[in-house]
Amino acid sequence: MAASFHLSNVRLADGQRVSVSVAGGRIEAIGPQVAPQPGVPAEDGGAALLLPGFVEGHTHLDKSNWGRPWYRNEVGPLLTDRIGNEREWRKTSGHDSAAQSLALSRAFVQAGTTRIRTHVDVDTEAGLRYLEGVLGTRQTMRDVLDMQIVAFPQSGMLKRPGTVELLDRALAAGADVLGALDPALIDGDPVASLNATFELAQRHRKPIDIHLHEPGEIGAFTLRLLLDRVQALGMQGEVVVSHAFCLGDLADRERDVLLERIAQLRVALLTSAPPSRAVPPLKICRDKGITIFGGNDGIRDTWSPYGVPDMLERAMLIGMRYDLRRDDDIAIAFDCVSEAAARGCHFADYGLHAGARADLVLVDAQTVAHAVVARPKRKLVVANGRFVVRDGELI
Amino acid sequence: MAASFHLSNVRLADGQRVSVSVAGGRIEAIGPQVAPQPGVPAEDGGAALLLPGFVEGHTHLDKSNWGRPWYRNEVGPLLTDRIGNEREWRKTSGHDSAAQSLALSRAFVQAGTTRIRTHVDVDTEAGLRYLEGVLGTRQTMRDVLDMQIVAFPQSGMLKRPGTVELLDRALAAGADVLGALDPALIDGDPVASLNATFELAQRHRKPIDIHLHEPGEIGAFTLRLLLDRVQALGMQGEVVVSHAFCLGDLADRERDVLLERIAQLRVALLTSAPPSRAVPPLKICRDKGITIFGGNDGIRDTWSPYGVPDMLERAMLIGMRYDLRRDDDIAIAFDCVSEAAARGCHFADYGLHAGARADLVLVDAQTVAHAVVARPKRKLVVANGRFVVRDGELI
Repeated sequence: MAASFHLSNVRLADGQRVSVSVAGGRIEAIGPQVAPQPGVPAEDGGAALLLPGFVEGHTHLDKSNWGRPWYRNEVGPLLTDRIGNEREWRKTSGHDSAAQSLALSRAFVQAGTTRIRTHVDVDTEAGLRYLEGVLGTRQTMRDVLDMQIVAFPQSGMLKRPGTVELLDRALAAGADVLGALDPALIDGDPVASLNATFELAQRHRKPIDIHLHEPGEIGAFTLRLLLDRVQALGMQGEVVVSHAFCLGDLADRERDVLLERIAQLRVALLTSAPPSRAVPPLKICRDKGITIFGGNDGIRDTWSPYGVPDMLERAMLIGMRYDLRRDDDIAIAFDCVSEAAARGCHFADYGLHAGARADLVLVDAQTVAHAVVARPKRKLVVANGRFVVRDGELI
Repeated sequence: MAASFHLSNVRLADGQRVSVSVAGGRIEAIGPQVAPQPGVPAEDGGAALLLPGFVEGHTHLDKSNWGRPWYRNEVGPLLTDRIGNEREWRKTSGHDSAAQSLALSRAFVQAGTTRIRTHVDVDTEAGLRYLEGVLGTRQTMRDVLDMQIVAFPQSGMLKRPGTVELLDRALAAGADVLGALDPALIDGDPVASLNATFELAQRHRKPIDIHLHEPGEIGAFTLRLLLDRVQALGMQGEVVVSHAFCLGDLADRERDVLLERIAQLRVALLTSAPPSRAVPPLKICRDKGITIFGGNDGIRDTWSPYGVPDMLERAMLIGMRYDLRRDDDIAIAFDCVSEAAARGCHFADYGLHAGARADLVLVDAQTVAHAVVARPKRKLVVANGRFVVRDGELI
């Protein structure tokens, strides 16, 4: 760990050779002419590529089985199969959300992620137990990891009476963001569900991040209701729609009308870029000025065994999903797990510039695209000014 | 290296603890009761998971840039952009198909692949130069790697006069399979192109492996012409259709009629499971008795920077593309890069049974699905009875 240090001989994405001076956990200066100060520890970057600490825009730390014995998945294919199976499994398996969220958080840091937005299940069986586990992990990791917690009604909200009150308590207990889930297809009443969500968010002055898996026309219907409320309540810039599969299903004309409103209302979109589902059109969204960013979604849980806590691999999967092959296109995939995700989640002081938090990743790669496709081990990770990883291993 | 050895304490996919005795490059016996013979070297597998050597069903060893300085991709989006760019780049960059195919082959072996079908470009500018390079690699690797070479007219066949003659020479020079490419959309004359392909294959008594990128109705049209010729010429079991994107585009009824004929004629299908394209329906094909298998396609070349020579990662991508989450489903993804690929390409003596070639991979994983999603380093690789990898490193 180091409060102040000088990192020389690193390359930026544009190829420029620079040095970075860090003091008090912040980037003090970055550029080709930044000279070491006497008495400040110096580190030679070995001409490695310098990237900003990565941002995980959407995961579920509390439900992962990372590092535990293999979970044999024999779950049915429906969303409700997966929800029910998980709730039962978490109750009966001894799954420990504190230990698991900590294990996965460490693995994220090990791979260069310094900011995480995690959705945490709140339901009438578990109450706030998972939230408490993740709040403990946030506290343990607070020096190096900037974590946003979304109170997430995974089992539905209106359909399970008592959930609204639990979400209310979760926001009071330290959750930063109010989550929500499929107001029509899970909750069964899109108007009442969205009204309850917005009312609760407004009362706590918290932003919203909604899981919207609803496809095609029903998803578009729910999305229009949501946008109406963002507009009426003045929550521009305070809402993320996660997944938004419907935007990949609709005819161009209907989709573009929705995208125009999404852009106007500064609603951000999150995609995990699943290869088996329709996805929002990445480049079109960006061209319209929409912030669209990336996340893993669950990692090795009862929903799905896939995923690793490495945002370079997620960027690769985003690149493959959107058929991004050119170097300048693959830089967009990396943007989804760095700048765009920080913007979409409002992580403060992000980036490689003076005044930003010193979250730095060094990799042996020739370009950003090379880093994304090769996913080399992290040569060095600095989180909040602290040295946390060398040669791929946590210090 | 060892001609004969005894491998004990390994687990099969079904959890059974077994030993394997190997003699003369073959599996002599495998089972729970197989005892070591006096004087035969013994190896303790450490309770690792035993998998058969992996099969790469479709790659392009000759055009990879693996291990070389990063290639900055600034290529246009059309198939013809990519074909033209590559032909020019290979001519002017000093790209060496012998060195590159050898580097990539070694990396494949390092990750446990012991059988490869590679398509090699044959065109009127390069002639048989790339084929000669890959034939050299095959010779160098012959003790450990079973390689099939497809003579592939990447720049088109009829549209570039002289290509048929080159393919004829390529088959005479050692190519095992005749390749082909988009008879309608590249060659411009599906009937004449297919006729020339089948005539040439018949003359050399070689099987066919055709790249069919043609989408929707035009792909279906070409595919019907192809199936007619398989039937008329009695080439059942001797044709692979690679990619076959059209089978992911068609309405179910039209698609199913095609699938019935494909099954009857024992035509096999290859998919790289690209996340940005329609793909043949994996489970439906299997249910109809069609052999459908997996491959990487190109790895880090001028077409695309993606891909690694690790068939476990390809199995993972296949699993993600087809939304295979259950353990029994992920076993299908692994089948695509092992048994099904060996069957589709007619690799001889494949598998974990007495009499098969001793191609063995050990990984620290609890189940096959675990191996696919975690892609652990290969603890041990035995290729054709020879120890080639320990702890992830080539011996």
